[in-house]
Amino acid sequence: MKTKEELLKLIEETLDEVLPDAGERPAVLSDAMRWAVGAGGKRIRPLVCLASALAVGGREEDAKYPAAAIELLHNYTLVHDDLPAMDNDTVRRGKPSVWAKFGEANAILAGDALQALAFRTAARAPRNVAEIVAALGDKGLGVVDGQIEDLVREKAANGASVLPLDTVDYVYEHKTADLFIASAVMGGYAGGGDAKSIDVLRRFALNLGLAFQYEDDILDGDSPWSPEETERRVKTATSAAVQALAELPGDTTFLSTLANKLVGRKA
Amino acid sequence: MKTKEELLKLIEETLDEVLPDAGERPAVLSDAMRWAVGAGGKRIRPLVCLASALAVGGREEDAKYPAAAIELLHNYTLVHDDLPAMDNDTVRRGKPSVWAKFGEANAILAGDALQALAFRTAARAPRNVAEIVAALGDKGLGVVDGQIEDLVREKAANGASVLPLDTVDYVYEHKTADLFIASAVMGGYAGGGDAKSIDVLRRFALNLGLAFQYEDDILDGDSPWSPEETERRVKTATSAAVQALAELPGDTTFLSTLANKLVGRKA
Repeated sequence: MKTKEELLKLIEETLDEVLPDAGERPAVLSDAMRWAVGAGGKRIRPLVCLASALAVGGREEDAKYPAAAIELLHNYTLVHDDLPAMDNDTVRRGKPSVWAKFGEANAILAGDALQALAFRTAARAPRNVAEIVAALGDKGLGVVDGQIEDLVREKAANGASVLPLDTVDYVYEHKTADLFIASAVMGGYAGGGDAKSIDVLRRFALNLGLAFQYEDDILDGDSPWSPEETERRVKTATSAAVQALAELPGDTTFLSTLANKLVGRKA
Repeated sequence: MKTKEELLKLIEETLDEVLPDAGERPAVLSDAMRWAVGAGGKRIRPLVCLASALAVGGREEDAKYPAAAIELLHNYTLVHDDLPAMDNDTVRRGKPSVWAKFGEANAILAGDALQALAFRTAARAPRNVAEIVAALGDKGLGVVDGQIEDLVREKAANGASVLPLDTVDYVYEHKTADLFIASAVMGGYAGGGDAKSIDVLRRFALNLGLAFQYEDDILDGDSPWSPEETERRVKTATSAAVQALAELPGDTTFLSTLANKLVGRKA
């Protein structure tokens, strides 16, 4: 039984392996890509991916490339979200954002390269590559859907204080839950899971992603619902996630720990 | 024996099949993606992809999703190149560029979605999906390399009229030839080509891409070489491309016609 630290080590090693070194690509591109992915992050999505391979009875090594892929994809979305034309954020994780440090054009291109590298890396999975790339593509598109709706919502928020709550649900499902779903489904496929296990992982990850986003709102103090309603939603989603785990054939310890730790987290 | 019009019809039908319809994704995203890909373009890269499947003895239908994928990827790069922080172009193919029509944030996101859809679509090939996605990923990264070097080059051009010509070669290989290589290699894999055929297709497409870019310079009147040297380069690259075709087992009529038509073209 591997520890969380061992799984994190595998994730960092794989990211370091696939990210370009100086000389391999133009220096500013390599630097910006590595700056974007950073080091020592929580790596929640790749942990979900590795743990999902274990949960279907596979090995964590089988899922190391899909795990790196989801982290690369997640970080490209952050690089582009931070751009002046989007959220205009100059700080990310306490450091200058990619565009603030490398300029806007380089940030657009570094984000583009991270997305290409994500798919390139996912294709290195040992089996079910077509399914794995399809899952990353579907959810990579879903994230953009969520981001577009979020922009529309923010624009509306300037003029109106009450937002249509069905739009909030749509944004949460796509902007946040989609990458959790891709993580779990890719890990399940890479670990050799059957169709039923993949469906269960999808249900687990949707609810985990929703609980994660509700908790984010609580931490940020900007939930669109009342405190009681937000709390109720966190509980419902977390229960649904944990219940799904019982239907999986492998070791679900990590997924269970992740689901329980995300709730009540402080950052 | 299919006509060029039949191959173009297959490309347009496949693009229409995979691009989102109204209702499938947020309306502005679907609209911006379809605006970017346009209709009735020359579709040179997808034609190379379909023709490469034929050239290894496969069927053009086998390569229809990789062909659509390369056109989607090519168009995402144009959407991002046109952004204000990049080339700041408001017109593309005689129509408003995506950012000029839909705004900067939507153009960034539409480009991102086109790249995700490109990989999603490539993964629908009937065989060799891992190799096909790897080729698209490698060359999708190569295009960004070329673009970054091009930006550096343009910046240098403001102060200096003489550019290091080895940088020009690098930019041409990556910014232009890489997508031709991906087109040919993906088509070869989708058509069931063996390792030797794939290598030959790679050599063909590198030279085709270089000839294409030299001709572009002649058309634009901004070749970095003398007219004689540019002409010599066009001839050398075209000959190398055409010679490679003799080593392929299938029907190379289309690839041969493409190589000869690109030289001396008027637009």
